[in-house]
Amino acid sequence: MNNAKSAIETLTALGKRIVHALLEYRYPVLEIPDRSTKNIVFDDESNRYVLGPSRNIRDSSNVKHVKRFAQLTWVASFAKELLRASRTSSLRDLYYSSEAFGVGFTDQSDSDRIVTDLESITSLPRESFGIYPEEHSSIYGEVVMRYTVTGYEGKEIDLTISPDGLPVGPALMTAKPLKSNAKIILAVESGGMFSRLIETKAWKRFNAVLIQLGGQPPRSTRRLMRNLNATLGLPVYIFTDGDPWGMHIAKVITSGSANSAHIKELTIPEAKWIGVTPEDIIQYSLPTEPMSDVDLRRLEELSRDVRYDEPEWQNYIQQFRQIRIKAEQQAFSRFGMDYVVDAYLSNKIN
Amino acid sequence: MNNAKSAIETLTALGKRIVHALLEYRYPVLEIPDRSTKNIVFDDESNRYVLGPSRNIRDSSNVKHVKRFAQLTWVASFAKELLRASRTSSLRDLYYSSEAFGVGFTDQSDSDRIVTDLESITSLPRESFGIYPEEHSSIYGEVVMRYTVTGYEGKEIDLTISPDGLPVGPALMTAKPLKSNAKIILAVESGGMFSRLIETKAWKRFNAVLIQLGGQPPRSTRRLMRNLNATLGLPVYIFTDGDPWGMHIAKVITSGSANSAHIKELTIPEAKWIGVTPEDIIQYSLPTEPMSDVDLRRLEELSRDVRYDEPEWQNYIQQFRQIRIKAEQQAFSRFGMDYVVDAYLSNKIN
Repeated sequence: MNNAKSAIETLTALGKRIVHALLEYRYPVLEIPDRSTKNIVFDDESNRYVLGPSRNIRDSSNVKHVKRFAQLTWVASFAKELLRASRTSSLRDLYYSSEAFGVGFTDQSDSDRIVTDLESITSLPRESFGIYPEEHSSIYGEVVMRYTVTGYEGKEIDLTISPDGLPVGPALMTAKPLKSNAKIILAVESGGMFSRLIETKAWKRFNAVLIQLGGQPPRSTRRLMRNLNATLGLPVYIFTDGDPWGMHIAKVITSGSANSAHIKELTIPEAKWIGVTPEDIIQYSLPTEPMSDVDLRRLEELSRDVRYDEPEWQNYIQQFRQIRIKAEQQAFSRFGMDYVVDAYLSNKIN
Repeated sequence: MNNAKSAIETLTALGKRIVHALLEYRYPVLEIPDRSTKNIVFDDESNRYVLGPSRNIRDSSNVKHVKRFAQLTWVASFAKELLRASRTSSLRDLYYSSEAFGVGFTDQSDSDRIVTDLESITSLPRESFGIYPEEHSSIYGEVVMRYTVTGYEGKEIDLTISPDGLPVGPALMTAKPLKSNAKIILAVESGGMFSRLIETKAWKRFNAVLIQLGGQPPRSTRRLMRNLNATLGLPVYIFTDGDPWGMHIAKVITSGSANSAHIKELTIPEAKWIGVTPEDIIQYSLPTEPMSDVDLRRLEELSRDVRYDEPEWQNYIQQFRQIRIKAEQQAFSRFGMDYVVDAYLSNKIN
């Protein structure tokens, strides 16, 4: 609730700035942090992408700016409405909601962009305003969360309550971690692995809160992981497929993405990628597939990416390029259903 | 547990037939219901696709058959192993598990096909063997389910327990519906609509169990709906986008898909598509998009599909063809966040 209150205050302050200008017969002007690639810099100290000092001016006296200016104020008022009513909205819903107001978004990518503008101006993620994408991932483990959504105010839910896990949805995102018996967070790429680790009780064995990333995870899932990491002090381990895409899932969790450079408090620099590393592929004789041209091009790109500057990561890239094969995290099933837990993860965790 | 026991018995019987032939120095032969399109017929009486009488012979004395024969017996033994250990496996895991046994699947679509063979022979869906695809949908509503999975044996869970809903995963799929305060099942296409209906308490207003289909739903979700429909007597309403694809989601729920013609007990003939119908699009002045060529071709196909023979459905197709526009279920947001509940669904349900 405090979060909602401070988000409302931020939006109100933004509104007041605009109204004050109008009352003084001035055209309101907004400064929006510039998110173009030339203003995205990698901050070595925080080990993540941040925006540089460049700002874009949105000047309501400029006929070329006035439409986007109006769209931004509409998105801000929609967000405030959501917060007041304790409601959430998908990005899709926001787009359709705009149609009654004639603010003229051409399509959803257009309204998504203005939502990002609002994030940049307020330094708050859209989730603070109750605005979510559609994708969900899941969570399972011994954490007690205190919920705040209507009908569940103050309710404490242990995240082992359902044996299929719980979706990382709007209600969970606004809940507060209270306590945990767990010692670590274990994030896995696929739903199959997630189910496997629940039913083999691997979560108990490793004292782990399990998170199913579902590929490159939605930002809300990264926020939840960071929240659990920061509030409960649980270190994060990331277990993905052994290919450039899996490795990069881990990298975005540790060091952020260019798309989210305007949002603080998303990265977990100390999170650890436990594999599948190129060395694991060889050492465990995993079933593999040859890398495609797309995979190899991706390695080439990543090798020049500042986030991969450290020798450890350059090393992974080098090894992938040498072996030119890849393996999925499910590939351990070759050695029996429990092997991934009994052998691989037992080696990697601790 | 009874289900697991009877599935084990079915698999054991299959194994015995093979062993007996061998003990009598005969080559074992299996008959597999033919799933090719020429043997898929629409059964007017049950109003769904079923397989015709044609059978394929898989003869282990035929060198061309022996590989698939061996693969099938491996999949059957893997399934029995899963049931014995009360475990589940994704289709992906099954594929990797096979690699240690040299049964020579070339890729996952290959092993998926043999899983379907096993379904056809046993007349049991793969879920009976603990084999699941990766996609999940979600459920929320006042239904109490009794779980059977390890660690949760006998536990009764009310499906309003988490305000984000619960994933339709392996544990929920094997749970038993006990009782419900709900009067209907309301299945919706998108996650955004699902969240909206939870947080506006529309589930309470309509006494509905909400199901998020997530597009064309995985078969496990259709099974769960049918189970709730049959066990608790809850009628099913389906709310999708107003386009050929949304309409066909409803059609597959009522009348089945050719892909699942070998599985009984999946369809819900009395389930009702409540829209968005072509008439709704006009009547509610929804924001629309023009139909693409792909949409129009799809309508053309559906118009010749036996499942659409009834005048009501032919009528929908005709109307879509006339208006040549489509609308998403989120499009009601144009009239405010509560309009879809207060106006549209209130009209459609009851």
